[in-house]
Amino acid sequence: MSNMDLTVEQLGPARFDSPLLARLGRQAGPMDFVDDRRRLCWNMYTDGAPRETDLSFEQAGPRRQIYFDPPHARAAIVTCGGLCPGLNDVIRALVMSLHYWYGIGEVLGVPYGYQGLAAGAQPAPYPLRAQDVEDVHQRGGTILGSSRGAPPVEEMVDTLVRLNVNILFCIGGDGTLRGAHAIDIEARRRGLKIAVAGIPKTIDNDIELVYRSFGFQTAVEEACKVLDCAHVEAKGARGGVGLVKLMGRDSGFIAAHGTLASGDVNYCLVPEVPFALEGEHGLLEQLRARLRARKHAVIAVAEGAGAALPGAGDRRDASGNVLHPDVGLFLKEAIERAFAGWGEEVHIKYFDPSYTIRSVSANANDSIFCSDLARCAANAAMAGRTGLMIGQWHGVFTHVPLAAIAGLRRRIDPQGKLWRAVQAATGQPDLIN
Amino acid sequence: MSNMDLTVEQLGPARFDSPLLARLGRQAGPMDFVDDRRRLCWNMYTDGAPRETDLSFEQAGPRRQIYFDPPHARAAIVTCGGLCPGLNDVIRALVMSLHYWYGIGEVLGVPYGYQGLAAGAQPAPYPLRAQDVEDVHQRGGTILGSSRGAPPVEEMVDTLVRLNVNILFCIGGDGTLRGAHAIDIEARRRGLKIAVAGIPKTIDNDIELVYRSFGFQTAVEEACKVLDCAHVEAKGARGGVGLVKLMGRDSGFIAAHGTLASGDVNYCLVPEVPFALEGEHGLLEQLRARLRARKHAVIAVAEGAGAALPGAGDRRDASGNVLHPDVGLFLKEAIERAFAGWGEEVHIKYFDPSYTIRSVSANANDSIFCSDLARCAANAAMAGRTGLMIGQWHGVFTHVPLAAIAGLRRRIDPQGKLWRAVQAATGQPDLIN
Amino acid sequence: MSNMDLTVEQLGPARFDSPLLARLGRQAGPMDFVDDRRRLCWNMYTDGAPRETDLSFEQAGPRRQIYFDPPHARAAIVTCGGLCPGLNDVIRALVMSLHYWYGIGEVLGVPYGYQGLAAGAQPAPYPLRAQDVEDVHQRGGTILGSSRGAPPVEEMVDTLVRLNVNILFCIGGDGTLRGAHAIDIEARRRGLKIAVAGIPKTIDNDIELVYRSFGFQTAVEEACKVLDCAHVEAKGARGGVGLVKLMGRDSGFIAAHGTLASGDVNYCLVPEVPFALEGEHGLLEQLRARLRARKHAVIAVAEGAGAALPGAGDRRDASGNVLHPDVGLFLKEAIERAFAGWGEEVHIKYFDPSYTIRSVSANANDSIFCSDLARCAANAAMAGRTGLMIGQWHGVFTHVPLAAIAGLRRRIDPQGKLWRAVQAATGQPDLIN
Amino acid sequence: MSNMDLTVEQLGPARFDSPLLARLGRQAGPMDFVDDRRRLCWNMYTDGAPRETDLSFEQAGPRRQIYFDPPHARAAIVTCGGLCPGLNDVIRALVMSLHYWYGIGEVLGVPYGYQGLAAGAQPAPYPLRAQDVEDVHQRGGTILGSSRGAPPVEEMVDTLVRLNVNILFCIGGDGTLRGAHAIDIEARRRGLKIAVAGIPKTIDNDIELVYRSFGFQTAVEEACKVLDCAHVEAKGARGGVGLVKLMGRDSGFIAAHGTLASGDVNYCLVPEVPFALEGEHGLLEQLRARLRARKHAVIAVAEGAGAALPGAGDRRDASGNVLHPDVGLFLKEAIERAFAGWGEEVHIKYFDPSYTIRSVSANANDSIFCSDLARCAANAAMAGRTGLMIGQWHGVFTHVPLAAIAGLRRRIDPQGKLWRAVQAATGQPDLIN
Repeated sequence: MSNMDLTVEQLGPARFDSPLLARLGRQAGPMDFVDDRRRLCWNMYTDGAPRETDLSFEQAGPRRQIYFDPPHARAAIVTCGGLCPGLNDVIRALVMSLHYWYGIGEVLGVPYGYQGLAAGAQPAPYPLRAQDVEDVHQRGGTILGSSRGAPPVEEMVDTLVRLNVNILFCIGGDGTLRGAHAIDIEARRRGLKIAVAGIPKTIDNDIELVYRSFGFQTAVEEACKVLDCAHVEAKGARGGVGLVKLMGRDSGFIAAHGTLASGDVNYCLVPEVPFALEGEHGLLEQLRARLRARKHAVIAVAEGAGAALPGAGDRRDASGNVLHPDVGLFLKEAIERAFAGWGEEVHIKYFDPSYTIRSVSANANDSIFCSDLARCAANAAMAGRTGLMIGQWHGVFTHVPLAAIAGLRRRIDPQGKLWRAVQAATGQPDLIN
Repeated sequence: MSNMDLTVEQLGPARFDSPLLARLGRQAGPMDFVDDRRRLCWNMYTDGAPRETDLSFEQAGPRRQIYFDPPHARAAIVTCGGLCPGLNDVIRALVMSLHYWYGIGEVLGVPYGYQGLAAGAQPAPYPLRAQDVEDVHQRGGTILGSSRGAPPVEEMVDTLVRLNVNILFCIGGDGTLRGAHAIDIEARRRGLKIAVAGIPKTIDNDIELVYRSFGFQTAVEEACKVLDCAHVEAKGARGGVGLVKLMGRDSGFIAAHGTLASGDVNYCLVPEVPFALEGEHGLLEQLRARLRARKHAVIAVAEGAGAALPGAGDRRDASGNVLHPDVGLFLKEAIERAFAGWGEEVHIKYFDPSYTIRSVSANANDSIFCSDLARCAANAAMAGRTGLMIGQWHGVFTHVPLAAIAGLRRRIDPQGKLWRAVQAATGQPDLIN
Repeated sequence: MSNMDLTVEQLGPARFDSPLLARLGRQAGPMDFVDDRRRLCWNMYTDGAPRETDLSFEQAGPRRQIYFDPPHARAAIVTCGGLCPGLNDVIRALVMSLHYWYGIGEVLGVPYGYQGLAAGAQPAPYPLRAQDVEDVHQRGGTILGSSRGAPPVEEMVDTLVRLNVNILFCIGGDGTLRGAHAIDIEARRRGLKIAVAGIPKTIDNDIELVYRSFGFQTAVEEACKVLDCAHVEAKGARGGVGLVKLMGRDSGFIAAHGTLASGDVNYCLVPEVPFALEGEHGLLEQLRARLRARKHAVIAVAEGAGAALPGAGDRRDASGNVLHPDVGLFLKEAIERAFAGWGEEVHIKYFDPSYTIRSVSANANDSIFCSDLARCAANAAMAGRTGLMIGQWHGVFTHVPLAAIAGLRRRIDPQGKLWRAVQAATGQPDLIN
Repeated sequence: MSNMDLTVEQLGPARFDSPLLARLGRQAGPMDFVDDRRRLCWNMYTDGAPRETDLSFEQAGPRRQIYFDPPHARAAIVTCGGLCPGLNDVIRALVMSLHYWYGIGEVLGVPYGYQGLAAGAQPAPYPLRAQDVEDVHQRGGTILGSSRGAPPVEEMVDTLVRLNVNILFCIGGDGTLRGAHAIDIEARRRGLKIAVAGIPKTIDNDIELVYRSFGFQTAVEEACKVLDCAHVEAKGARGGVGLVKLMGRDSGFIAAHGTLASGDVNYCLVPEVPFALEGEHGLLEQLRARLRARKHAVIAVAEGAGAALPGAGDRRDASGNVLHPDVGLFLKEAIERAFAGWGEEVHIKYFDPSYTIRSVSANANDSIFCSDLARCAANAAMAGRTGLMIGQWHGVFTHVPLAAIAGLRRRIDPQGKLWRAVQAATGQPDLIN
């Protein structure tokens, strides 16, 4: 990472006093505004040896001087991709802080994701007032609606220009942030003074430079409830197996944390750690031994686990694309086939709770976290930062240039603390021959 | 129903004072014991006209004189079939009341359903003490384990004889109660003085003469949470459809009650009410119109709904048995195919929460209900009743002969109050051409 | 009860076809409307002997012919007294069924209880549309607000006349129903054709002729959570006592049901069963013995329990009214004083969760129950019934004249099934010397 | 802080290979063990200027070489002070990791806090096996029991010697950690090779150098539920005020975070921010204005708030100690008195949920956090560290010498980010004249 560039773009010099200055009045203290020079070190460790890198992040937070004149500024908010607990909390906090803290001219909600920025999108973006969002944090999902994909970037920038939007907040995952980056580049190319700020959304918690993503803790909480049910089902039958597929296409954080919190999982399968089905050390023989000894088992499998297994990824559609099969059903069938072959009893109860997990409302802690993220994004954009997302490094909110995260993914380190804890909690061996 | 025989078998004349008499001492009052002659009328209505039937039920409850001598009696408990919230509450209350109220000699737990009564079953039935079950109501599932099917009835009765079991409590659904009936008949045939009492378990609430089955309210509660998630998912996309498959092979009570409680369901599909997919009034065109107008929809479908649809039930296995396809997946594919044909947008989020719903612990009200059922069963068996199950008629616990319920199923009346309420809550039209 | 008059008043002969007839069209069946002659027997038991009474209730439900012409009718809804889970469900279902089933002209919401019917009440009653109440069942409390007490009955009837209200729905407890009765009498006296229908609200479940009151099951559910916390706290200290005060001024149903559902309560104290503090069999000595043996204890006390204890009810206010002291704090102090005197260790953790219990939203089952009650009330009033409340007898909804319930209270029978179950669950002795 | 000494004591040179080495075998990688020289910087910021301090923490985690020979080592665990969500998770993870990771000889549970280390304590410390703690994380409280205060330190060390305890884990708050420090000093004085490791427990989140304390997030979650009820109650009456007292004697973190998460609080009162009752800007007049305008209000008050108010802290007991009055009741009475004086309507619903909040089981995220803390403590003690507690700095677990934290308390900074967010969320003005 040592040659990564963490410089965040700035639309121009700050020109206006922050309205917070007037609002705070005599109360204003040194903690109320973040100095632009203040940065957070990438490397926080010392061992006497010279530092590996001098990388540092710009710290997020309100600036004393800002770029946009609030009463003449107009912001728009768009939510993209799959649902995630906390989306409404982010929307609410953006609207509240733009209206109440900054006294912004108007905030628009863009319906149904980037599709709402298409030329003739129906319904069109519409104003969001504070009272419209007052109670939305009590509901899961996104009041704006969402979608996947996007119109051409030129068309979206045209729409922003047509709507006089000065600030665009993009809430979404990897693809959404790439889209935000493209919009930012196009706006720069045209010389437009539009700030584009991303709020990373990934229920899988797999965005690099983001210490923790919103909704993740809520998702783990919900996953645990299902793992508990799986445990009950497993114990309810001789040869009972509770098999739970959890989100995580490229990284297994939800499966791993769910495993740690539940305490009842016997096998945790994640994309980062290959495993064999067949053979002495493969999952099937291990499971067979466990069912003989203990009569039941619980398996948590991330949806992207086992991609390398023979038979798991070899189906292709008409265009030759690899079809991502449902790893949970794949495992279910493989286990049932193996036990049938051995003439031994197995009863698999299969759980696929993904839509339930992602559509609940955020828990209290995630809710607060979402508000913090949103306020940081509002502060950054009002101060003229653009082409950035709000990251979190060791508990401190940061400005991260969208350019820096392209193609990076956080993944579980199979030799790291988290995976070792999972191994200890499950007692599972290496499922490799 | 007017020619139904509701006479419950009795092993012989009651010979012992109930231990409750001594326990209550001077406190004992007229309400403490139920008179054997007291019966509950089947027909509780009057309209001046002569009564349709004089059918009546034996009322459940403790008897002043009982048949078994508690310190020399041994009971066994078996749980069969799928999980259902409250199983552990029933087990707990049986063990508690047999030990504390009656001072019974011993209570055995039969592991893994009727299979635990096979000749050489491993593990074998084992004693259940009060302290073993103290906290089990806080967990879902059954501490005894369960299974489907049963060894030959002669073998099971042999086991009961070998274990000196005087009383057998069978907790389970339709098949389990038929099994209990067979055991009772075999025991009678051999002249054995074994009381067999059933506690009906049907998460679908579909046992006739049982006004409400345990776990049902808890199941509806859980179903509602999922319907709420489905609503959130549906609203999160243009053309969003939340499709929730709920339990109910022959009757759609969970789907109907869940629909009423959630308030967000637009189409409730149950086995009792046929519906068309195709055609002007079929589900597909209706859904199309709704998505155009309202952009989203929620569908609750009981697993046995739509059996008459072309394509839904026409697959057969090697032996020619109709394969029950997953109606949820069937609908999902049919809807996606239709909308693809129309070139209109639809995003179906499919929920299959059955295992989650049935494995949670009972809510407070179900928990109390389970205890009541269990105590009634204990009272009946100690008094020498056999070949019966505990029913509930208009809120009163009754003794129902197992012979009486053979082949009866409670189902939703498409012209009755419940279905009218569902129609009103969803606004759904008749989906029939 | 045998000389009770259960005849419900009727404003006049039904004059209009129910709009349901047209709505159902060809679907309409014999179950869709209740025949006015159909009645539910008070006594449902038979034992060969002649029936004790021939009392019977009018069955609730939609009538084929109704009294009011829906498009020209105007209804008003008022909620009074303390909060109770399900109030918003009742309001929602009233508004929905009046608008969608009956196509009523207008429904008014009366703000802040009967006070909203005062001459110059601010805010004044305002129209409730279907969309205003769509989501209110997801929130506790009442969207209308509530209050205690009432303006003079003449003033309230004046207001109803001024607002052209034809139907008044009063949701509330004992006092509220007495108020509804007074309004009905005054309206009759003036010859007004106003129907007054009550929906009984009593979180304590203590209204006679009402088998179960809405919100009660939810309240027991919440009470159980607190009893569980009390158990945890009690076990956390040597001499730990978890003391939970629950609602129940005149009857201890919540305490009793909570005790049964939790399984962890050692002493359940209710108004119906006197107990001594002092003396060998008094609570203090019994608790002392238990703490020596088991180190901890859980006590559930209904707020009206122990009124006869010396010192508990002897404080009077300036007007000479008995001051109801907080029985929980009274017990806490008495226990601490006694143990201090004995020099023995006791740590009392006192819980007073009443406001939390009553302000949660209704659970699924209560929610459905509320809708049923509301629809029955709408049906009754549209059919011209007045001066009645919706009761429930053995699971069937009934019309009960308000005159019949004056002064009646349901209470726990100390020799009945419920109290015996509590005694069995707690193992508590008679706390009487 | 710059002159703080963060050096952690070490019983002696590490002498044994960690059993993890053998367990991991070829899998062992560079991340598996923490190098003793690796330290975490106190100051993580850079702004070009020289660093304010070079303070750094020892990083927690497993060491390659350890001090104790596991099969010959014996550990003891003690939990002290008030309950806190997660205590059982900590106990469980300590027992699990000591047994399964380290293969320790024996782990003792000390009953009822430090009192269990008294000379003749009954019950005496007893062995804790892995199977004893398997499910305890599903229950709130502490399976060991707790107490306040402690026997003389010499007596406790005598007990440790008598029981051959090599490692003592003390889980508790400020006082408990001071006790641990005293035990460590006494053990050092006697030349005993006993490691004493603290795990800080403070539901208030107010221990300095501990970024986040276990159970805090769970507590906020529970507090939010009560704030939501208070909001419902407040809106249910004209002049309705929901007043919620939350934990926080010296710092108001729970009240502040609860306020942020709920979104419904209008006044948040904490110990760190003084407020006036009387006067134009005092709480009473502000509340009066709000009730006139908005009819209802929600107040969250930390138990230590308002200590400087006239009348709040002026009661003293017989020994002259200031009696901490219940600030909630104090406010309730003050508000009622003021509104009575003004002749204006107010209905205060008072909530005191402290025991409920602290006795629930930990949520998933806290549960994982507790396991991490426990494993760090086990690693530290096995490696021979003593006189330390496990801290957390910017998300990294650290070793903090007990000597360093004496007398330090984390408190809300009235000019910091958290309090500004509370001000924004509530809209509350400075309540100071």
